[in-house]
Amino acid sequence: MTTFEHFAEPYVHFAAELADAARPLALSYFRTPLEIVSKLDESPVTIADRTIEQHLRALIQARFPEHGIYGEEFGIKEGNAFTWVLDPIDGTKSFITGFPLFGTLISLTMDEKPFCGLIDVPATGERWVGQPGHTSFSGSPAKTSMCEKLSEARFYTTSPDMFTGDQVDRFETLSRSTRLRRFGGDCYIYGLLASGHCDLVLETGLQPYDYMALVPVIRGAGGCISDWQGNDLSIHSNGQVVASATPELHDQALALLNP
Amino acid sequence: MTTFEHFAEPYVHFAAELADAARPLALSYFRTPLEIVSKLDESPVTIADRTIEQHLRALIQARFPEHGIYGEEFGIKEGNAFTWVLDPIDGTKSFITGFPLFGTLISLTMDEKPFCGLIDVPATGERWVGQPGHTSFSGSPAKTSMCEKLSEARFYTTSPDMFTGDQVDRFETLSRSTRLRRFGGDCYIYGLLASGHCDLVLETGLQPYDYMALVPVIRGAGGCISDWQGNDLSIHSNGQVVASATPELHDQALALLNP
Repeated sequence: MTTFEHFAEPYVHFAAELADAARPLALSYFRTPLEIVSKLDESPVTIADRTIEQHLRALIQARFPEHGIYGEEFGIKEGNAFTWVLDPIDGTKSFITGFPLFGTLISLTMDEKPFCGLIDVPATGERWVGQPGHTSFSGSPAKTSMCEKLSEARFYTTSPDMFTGDQVDRFETLSRSTRLRRFGGDCYIYGLLASGHCDLVLETGLQPYDYMALVPVIRGAGGCISDWQGNDLSIHSNGQVVASATPELHDQALALLNP
Repeated sequence: MTTFEHFAEPYVHFAAELADAARPLALSYFRTPLEIVSKLDESPVTIADRTIEQHLRALIQARFPEHGIYGEEFGIKEGNAFTWVLDPIDGTKSFITGFPLFGTLISLTMDEKPFCGLIDVPATGERWVGQPGHTSFSGSPAKTSMCEKLSEARFYTTSPDMFTGDQVDRFETLSRSTRLRRFGGDCYIYGLLASGHCDLVLETGLQPYDYMALVPVIRGAGGCISDWQGNDLSIHSNGQVVASATPELHDQALALLNP
């Protein structure tokens, strides 16, 4: 273990405690009738979302009162250099249609950069945990595939409907250059990428709480993740995300996205 | 129980035995490297597919030697009025990308009409079993939703890429008339429909072993399933499938599909 990994350890452990606390709450609301409220951006949001985030915020406040919090439902609480970024239910459309691959996303940023994060999947009991130099899947090391060629890549995105305007052409060009393109999955598909089951993911319109936790998971597994221009993702990114199994594949994807 | 339900009982029970036998085989190959063979129709097919179907055919041959068998991998064995229709791995693209919502489909047809069938989901341990007048989900009754309006329906299809030619417009018109459209899932989304979590599914290009098991599952749960013209599905259907939570919703879907 490097010094940085030692440094990260208590935070990674606490993130897992948060996920442990969120999981039964998520499952208690999954596949039950819910009051569904339409937010201004039209995405469905559930009582489960709010209940979980309130609980996680209270746990963080009790353990690290000096840390900031940035959650999907209750916004930003200012703090020191550390901020917990929370998406209680990533994949609310999955959640409200009984589709079991929704997830809870938890990450910790330092100076606005994500350095540890996890994807927890309550309905399947799976969890990817990323930290500097290492990603684990349900306790075992996760590694991205060795795919270096776009023509051999297995491509995933949640929905073609997320791409608008000139993004549509770039999405079509990239995804049709791969061996296989598939839809569905939200955060789950980044887990599949971290574990080597798919090779390339392209998405857009994501919020920081949708992508911050993905960064340590993908990088710790040996993959690459950036915005569509190749920049590191931060709180201030524009919501475009591309993730790849290898640097070679990432370069090819970026070249097609920016002709 | 009606006389017909009594009549179906031993076959339903045997179908479940087949699914029990298939499940550990499917899981033993899931998320492991596989030799992937391209069939003539280009769909990926795995060793798991072949291994499972061989095993199921042997079990059927031993128990009901007079019955016919129609499997995805090894074709048709002629028999009496009864035929077992088998899709060992429905969702091979899911399977080869580690996506856990692939299923094993098993149905029994009598005079070419499906009268009992099941969707087994090895990776999540879920199972929908349909028979005359009843569908169960992992042991409890499954019921479709009461959704009667297209504008309120939650729509699913596996991929927009399955629609070609003039099907594209019909798919777009129908899916965009709903409250929510979602992608991904193969046979799993018919299970979600049977359990009331989504309301409408539209697909095309399916083979009899892809859809025969779905018919008793959807009908036993109170839903409707037909080809795009509203005809009952049979071995000879053209591979277009529409399934709905209620007759009212089904009529609206058919009206939009056949303007």
